[in-house]
Amino acid sequence: MNTTTVAAFGTHAPDLALENIQIPRREVQADDIAIEILYCGVCHSDLHFAKNDWGFTTYPVVSGHEIVGKVTAVGNAVTKYHVGDTVAVGCLVDSCRSYSSCAQDLEQYCLNGFTGTYGGVDKFLGGTTHGGYSQSIVVDQHFVLRVPNGLDLAGVAPLLCAGITTWSPLRHWNVGPNSKVAVVGLGGLGHMAIKLAKGLGADVTLFSRSADKEADAKQLGADRIIISTDPEAMAAAAGTFDFILDTVPYAHDLNPYVQALAVSGSLVVVGYLGALEDQLNTMPMVFSRKTVAGSLIGGIAETQELLDFCGEHNIVSDVEVIKMQEINQAYERMLKSDVRYRFVIDMASLK
Amino acid sequence: MNTTTVAAFGTHAPDLALENIQIPRREVQADDIAIEILYCGVCHSDLHFAKNDWGFTTYPVVSGHEIVGKVTAVGNAVTKYHVGDTVAVGCLVDSCRSYSSCAQDLEQYCLNGFTGTYGGVDKFLGGTTHGGYSQSIVVDQHFVLRVPNGLDLAGVAPLLCAGITTWSPLRHWNVGPNSKVAVVGLGGLGHMAIKLAKGLGADVTLFSRSADKEADAKQLGADRIIISTDPEAMAAAAGTFDFILDTVPYAHDLNPYVQALAVSGSLVVVGYLGALEDQLNTMPMVFSRKTVAGSLIGGIAETQELLDFCGEHNIVSDVEVIKMQEINQAYERMLKSDVRYRFVIDMASLK
Ligand SMILES: [Zn+2]
Ligand SMILES: [Zn+2]
Ligand SMILES: [Zn+2]
Ligand SMILES: [Zn+2]
Repeated sequence: MNTTTVAAFGTHAPDLALENIQIPRREVQADDIAIEILYCGVCHSDLHFAKNDWGFTTYPVVSGHEIVGKVTAVGNAVTKYHVGDTVAVGCLVDSCRSYSSCAQDLEQYCLNGFTGTYGGVDKFLGGTTHGGYSQSIVVDQHFVLRVPNGLDLAGVAPLLCAGITTWSPLRHWNVGPNSKVAVVGLGGLGHMAIKLAKGLGADVTLFSRSADKEADAKQLGADRIIISTDPEAMAAAAGTFDFILDTVPYAHDLNPYVQALAVSGSLVVVGYLGALEDQLNTMPMVFSRKTVAGSLIGGIAETQELLDFCGEHNIVSDVEVIKMQEINQAYERMLKSDVRYRFVIDMASLK
Repeated sequence: MNTTTVAAFGTHAPDLALENIQIPRREVQADDIAIEILYCGVCHSDLHFAKNDWGFTTYPVVSGHEIVGKVTAVGNAVTKYHVGDTVAVGCLVDSCRSYSSCAQDLEQYCLNGFTGTYGGVDKFLGGTTHGGYSQSIVVDQHFVLRVPNGLDLAGVAPLLCAGITTWSPLRHWNVGPNSKVAVVGLGGLGHMAIKLAKGLGADVTLFSRSADKEADAKQLGADRIIISTDPEAMAAAAGTFDFILDTVPYAHDLNPYVQALAVSGSLVVVGYLGALEDQLNTMPMVFSRKTVAGSLIGGIAETQELLDFCGEHNIVSDVEVIKMQEINQAYERMLKSDVRYRFVIDMASLK
């Protein structure tokens, strides 16, 4: 298959900094869209994958799955987009598209395994897929989203991972104007969860370990903050929330948040993957029909729904725009949670 | 308030056997139904409460919350029942009946605390309420259920606790003809769960530690059994079930059952109250939007729905009918799980 060599930023080993590299992009196939990348958000997964923190990285790595760009070419079977359209690509660039989860527009739960935007198996070129820290990308039209007019494009980029990861559970658990919602943790995911839950009309509370997040949380749309390290405040919150979205990325005790759920309430974990070190107690779950669940990014139709919703409600992520060459310092700052609330790379800097 | 003294079977201390005692029943009030008790099922809670296993028992205790009987008198505001009707009483005899959960027909989650059929605060006579191990009981009409015609009345009794405890989650999580359901554990709750899930049209699997339950499980309606101690069988079951009802009454590892859930599946605990000693792993929950939840008995409207469903489908509990005087031996046998699947007391034996 013919390929084009394009500029990218990536790394060849876990302990090396990211630097300029060249990668191939496939020739546009019948259902493909070629996209010039304008902005790419910087997700924690980008960093973990580049450093092989999960142990399954193959190199070279080009991360990035919060992609916004312009269509530069379309295959001859493409009907969804035209050259010049503003489009986006998120965490998925392929899946089986026929069976079970995929048939229900839940490509993120594809039973045959979805193809990640980076680090996935590249069915066209072999090797692994390369993500958005690059000049351009070629993606099947099914996995390309339409960006509504009028939104700040740098702020749109994080909707493609941080946004949809919080939107999907908010929608699946029917959050709306009568919902009392709480968000645990105020990072990239948490700040989107506040904005989106508020956009859906819910009453929104932030659980945070420190009171110094209060002004920011309220500015993002939270109605109040509860300090999770304050036993009296936590006791007073017992039985309050219909839905709690837990965005904390490390092992922590869920029991205080289960206690804060109302009858039939649901606590949904999106930030932490692994064993809960603290023993979960079933007593309050049984006595009040409480639920603990997990949720992963979102499907393609849901992601389009999110983008359209954000267009109608003028919601974007709060971002700090950086140059591609600043990515290594940005990773350092992310490790210290020193970002409000997402770095986004201006890909013009790569030229 | 005037009272009538009636014969009952109860105990005055945790280490004493149950024996004949006399208890007062209140004069029938405007909304009350007086019931001659015909049958009373024997629940594990009866035994735990009599022995003060939970530490909050006050004596004397008269247990029993799976009650079937005949109406012998009605108050002057009673419209639901007439003298001679066959009726039933379950785990609840009162609640606030106005606020939040109660307004949604979820009296079992009453935020002001429901009144248990035994061991609750008796609002009329002071002291604690006394349950079904007795000649008669007086209950507000709202908490009295209608028993459909044509069912074996001894087999109906366990529907009032074991039955509704499994019915409520089956209904809340929308189990129906297209559902793949599994039941963990084959005791009083488990055998009802199999019958009811099958009655709802689901495909039903029993998880059991021993293969010797297979014939019984299939006779109750299960389509198959999976031996939970067989690693190969458990691996083969991964990703299979939409709904798993876990009736096991002691701490156990939920992770193998979470693994057996399909995408968006729910594991609901009804048997065990307390800390999960094994660390629950969020990874499969996040990657497949799986849920772990709890559920407690059921509301009054749901209980009537269950009884009506059982009338239509000719479903009752498999029971071993005993005399009231055999209760102490029955408790001994229950502690060894030596009962298929519920003891029911023929209250004529108390006369
Ligand atoms: Zn991401
Ligand atoms: Zn698929
Ligand atoms: Zn019971
Ligand atoms: Zn109530």
